[in-house]
Amino acid sequence: MKKENSAPTMKDVAREAGVALGTVSKVVNGLPVGDSYKIRVEEAIRKLNYQINSYAQGLKASKTHTVALLIPNTLEPFYASLTYHINLALLKRKYRMLLCSTDYDSNLEQEYVAMAQQNKVDGIIGLTYNPDLVIEETTPFIAIDRSMGPKIPCVTSDNFAGGQLAAEKLADLGCRKVAFLRWGSSLTNEPNKRKAGFENGCLARGLSYEMKIINDGEPYKEFEDFLAGHIINGKLAFDGIFCVTDTLAHDILRTLKKLGQAVPGDVQVIGFDGTRHFGNKAYTCSTIVQPVSEIAEMCVELLTQENMLSKPPLVCLPVSYAYGGTTSEMPEA
Amino acid sequence: MKKENSAPTMKDVAREAGVALGTVSKVVNGLPVGDSYKIRVEEAIRKLNYQINSYAQGLKASKTHTVALLIPNTLEPFYASLTYHINLALLKRKYRMLLCSTDYDSNLEQEYVAMAQQNKVDGIIGLTYNPDLVIEETTPFIAIDRSMGPKIPCVTSDNFAGGQLAAEKLADLGCRKVAFLRWGSSLTNEPNKRKAGFENGCLARGLSYEMKIINDGEPYKEFEDFLAGHIINGKLAFDGIFCVTDTLAHDILRTLKKLGQAVPGDVQVIGFDGTRHFGNKAYTCSTIVQPVSEIAEMCVELLTQENMLSKPPLVCLPVSYAYGGTTSEMPEA
Repeated sequence: MKKENSAPTMKDVAREAGVALGTVSKVVNGLPVGDSYKIRVEEAIRKLNYQINSYAQGLKASKTHTVALLIPNTLEPFYASLTYHINLALLKRKYRMLLCSTDYDSNLEQEYVAMAQQNKVDGIIGLTYNPDLVIEETTPFIAIDRSMGPKIPCVTSDNFAGGQLAAEKLADLGCRKVAFLRWGSSLTNEPNKRKAGFENGCLARGLSYEMKIINDGEPYKEFEDFLAGHIINGKLAFDGIFCVTDTLAHDILRTLKKLGQAVPGDVQVIGFDGTRHFGNKAYTCSTIVQPVSEIAEMCVELLTQENMLSKPPLVCLPVSYAYGGTTSEMPEA
Repeated sequence: MKKENSAPTMKDVAREAGVALGTVSKVVNGLPVGDSYKIRVEEAIRKLNYQINSYAQGLKASKTHTVALLIPNTLEPFYASLTYHINLALLKRKYRMLLCSTDYDSNLEQEYVAMAQQNKVDGIIGLTYNPDLVIEETTPFIAIDRSMGPKIPCVTSDNFAGGQLAAEKLADLGCRKVAFLRWGSSLTNEPNKRKAGFENGCLARGLSYEMKIINDGEPYKEFEDFLAGHIINGKLAFDGIFCVTDTLAHDILRTLKKLGQAVPGDVQVIGFDGTRHFGNKAYTCSTIVQPVSEIAEMCVELLTQENMLSKPPLVCLPVSYAYGGTTSEMPEA
């Protein structure tokens, strides 16, 4: 009857296999690792009779009624809005929320994951870009926007459909030659599907398109040069632009003004996120709106439901389009 | 040796005096109540030998290393920024932060105060407009922007100096006739000093001024009517406007546009808060910048320092002015 105490942990597996803890975490969570590592980890799991499915216990035995939220910051409007709605969804269910603004600090992220493992919090909802975060499969964790592996539910907007919707809207509004601009992480993550969806929409609707993609750390000036390089006799070669976020659209709108291009007269612009001025006023641009409140509800619902076995690996929630002054339709009266 | 268990509580005092708990809280925290109530509470305190100064124990015996933040929401940029900086200041000192977006729900606020009384959190930092919040004097509490009584430290910007600075700036920038616009809570709170400071600055610099003040719940349209009513032959009677917040300035800028008034050509506008587009980009208008990061540090410093006796009742931190496109000086190169 020493089952509870002698159950092998992920650390035991790492020691047995002679690999890093992160490697075990990846194998257990179904993420790709080199074949030789995978074999060693799987052998160690068999030898120690390590039980992967203990994850399925979930929050049934909630001890703390506290959930931690890992988020880069609460300054950027999308993060601020997510924080607000997740906070409300938890409070409604009598859960408390520990907030951890990570500023992309992976040590801090790992520290909070450890708290969940030590039962100091019941579970974690996390928006993290840390590819090396080690999450034991016994840790109730809900990811936002970036999959942490097939066994960890990830909640996100339907980014592909959103990209497609942006292309369709630009086509409906009379555009013929459009551009997609992206600035962001080169890591695989859900928002990157916006690009694929946009391409798909352009092809379906016969729009010609160009892409300009800049990774984090590269200078914004590349967008300025790209746009300036597409001005012929004072006229921009594009009549529509889809920006991967409203934040980028904000910068692009300033650049277009500097380049003497009128919005929406010369070129129409659609962003992504559904950001509102001062959190609750008009949209900052015409935009694909993320269902932030629904994302928040879904994260909390998945984390706090009892039967973890039924948890889906990826939940994509529907987006919508909203007019915000940078496209040429007549706004609603 | 039954000191610990038999020490009378604020509830005992209320029962003895035959008054509500909130009344005892007010007397203990030095807030005004009717004389007859005050006498009854003070008599009960004497009779029970109730010890008011137990507040001075502070966080010396920290149990949870957790602090709760009460804030209306994290959607509005000023609140979002405060939340971020308080979170960082706590994490830096190895404190965890429980976030409670109150949406002005006074029951929820009281619930979190109760958690502090039950030692489930070490203390509370709160921005609340709830005049009836009951705070036992044993509860470590730091208020932001609204004093909860002289025994509870309140941290805020120097709002008076900020109002004065706005008037001086408008004078420096050539304005002669200015307006002050305020929309907000009618409760006494620190930001209301912006009005007094502005008047003072106008008088000192010989600016003529008008005030338009609307309370929460009253329609924004009153500002439109006020401004429209001051247009003579197409020209606004004011060449400068000071708005009590950047949020209000955002709306006023739209109204001025609708009324055909150019900013800053016809009228210059200064807001208050230091709000930036998307949290970290350009200022949304020329503005009096609140030192949010310093406010956050001060709150956490006061809450976590050991000797609570030295805590000041009101700390006002210096503001500064920043150009944000709605005034007529030349921006810095």
